[in-house]
Amino acid sequence: MSAKSAETIPDIVIGRLPLYLRALRRLQQDDKQVTSSQELGKRLDISSAQIRKDLSHFGGFGKQGTGYQIEFLIERLQDVLQVNQDWSVVVVGAGNLGIAISHYRGFQDRGFSIADVFDISPEKIGQRIGNYVVQPVGSMAEAIHDKGIKIAMLAVPAEDAQSVADQLVEAGVRAILNYAPININVPDHVQIQYIDPVTHLQRMTYYLEA
Amino acid sequence: MSAKSAETIPDIVIGRLPLYLRALRRLQQDDKQVTSSQELGKRLDISSAQIRKDLSHFGGFGKQGTGYQIEFLIERLQDVLQVNQDWSVVVVGAGNLGIAISHYRGFQDRGFSIADVFDISPEKIGQRIGNYVVQPVGSMAEAIHDKGIKIAMLAVPAEDAQSVADQLVEAGVRAILNYAPININVPDHVQIQYIDPVTHLQRMTYYLEA
Repeated sequence: MSAKSAETIPDIVIGRLPLYLRALRRLQQDDKQVTSSQELGKRLDISSAQIRKDLSHFGGFGKQGTGYQIEFLIERLQDVLQVNQDWSVVVVGAGNLGIAISHYRGFQDRGFSIADVFDISPEKIGQRIGNYVVQPVGSMAEAIHDKGIKIAMLAVPAEDAQSVADQLVEAGVRAILNYAPININVPDHVQIQYIDPVTHLQRMTYYLEA
Repeated sequence: MSAKSAETIPDIVIGRLPLYLRALRRLQQDDKQVTSSQELGKRLDISSAQIRKDLSHFGGFGKQGTGYQIEFLIERLQDVLQVNQDWSVVVVGAGNLGIAISHYRGFQDRGFSIADVFDISPEKIGQRIGNYVVQPVGSMAEAIHDKGIKIAMLAVPAEDAQSVADQLVEAGVRAILNYAPININVPDHVQIQYIDPVTHLQRMTYYLEA
């Protein structure tokens, strides 16, 4: 992977890069061409020193006083995060959440497209969701293997999440985004991330007048 | 607000507290009573020094070598984040995502309960979603005002998100969790957070073999 340097970058730094990328793309949509660590920092509530330090892991992006070229920095971050390509993703669970994910327009142009949607329930299998026809979980492993899919989004009930995750890993998935409100155990070579609205809500209640 | 100290805590520190709280509750569910900054750090991929520094803003929680009392630290963090009470929340948008949020079991015992679900569409108004009957957006401002609601979750189409957010703020909402894949402008006295699955996916692709 040419994007990787020999240096090991802390995961917490990697976790901030998608936030930088999103902020940069918003600036670009506003027709801006140059930004600064101060401007990015203000948008993201991260100190400008932290942003400069994070970006310095990946080479020189800007000189003091001249700022960052937005287009160049976007391309470089896309390289580092390996989203300069399109990753096929499967969705497991065709309940309301799975349907909402399958219709979500935020994946577009950001490195991801949904290949298949799976469910275990006979009433859901065969149903049409936008461009997808819900496939049986029984055919999931074969599809993941045949298509070389590495990423899954998990939108099943909490009680099914661990066993589905186990099947996904067994089939070759190496990254799981879990929407179920439960902790999942995966082997060390598999990435896991959680969508947890409560952590976002709790961050805001700190500031509210009770 | 007695939970607040006179010191201004950086927002990035506040953003980590819900992660600490979640990790502590998982340790408690595993019947643990004591933990350490090392153990928490390992679970969260955050350095133990950072965790000790973050927690030191809120007083002394543990002595070197004896660790943190989990129950005490949970209570203290709940106080700081003001989730030792139950916040009533409204959901706007009764499409698939709004329905999924309304059924979500992850809010329970973490400081939040859904008071009402609103939608603009005549076909959705009056429909039953679990314990809720979908209310018309036209009655939203009055309900928010009467119930003193400060928090909203926004699950409307991207093109409607800004105008609904404006109505929410006008009605007295002070914190918005936005699920729509679009940037929202709110006044400085209003908190906004985004649910953006792509930032989580991009954090994982960094580690994948392309």
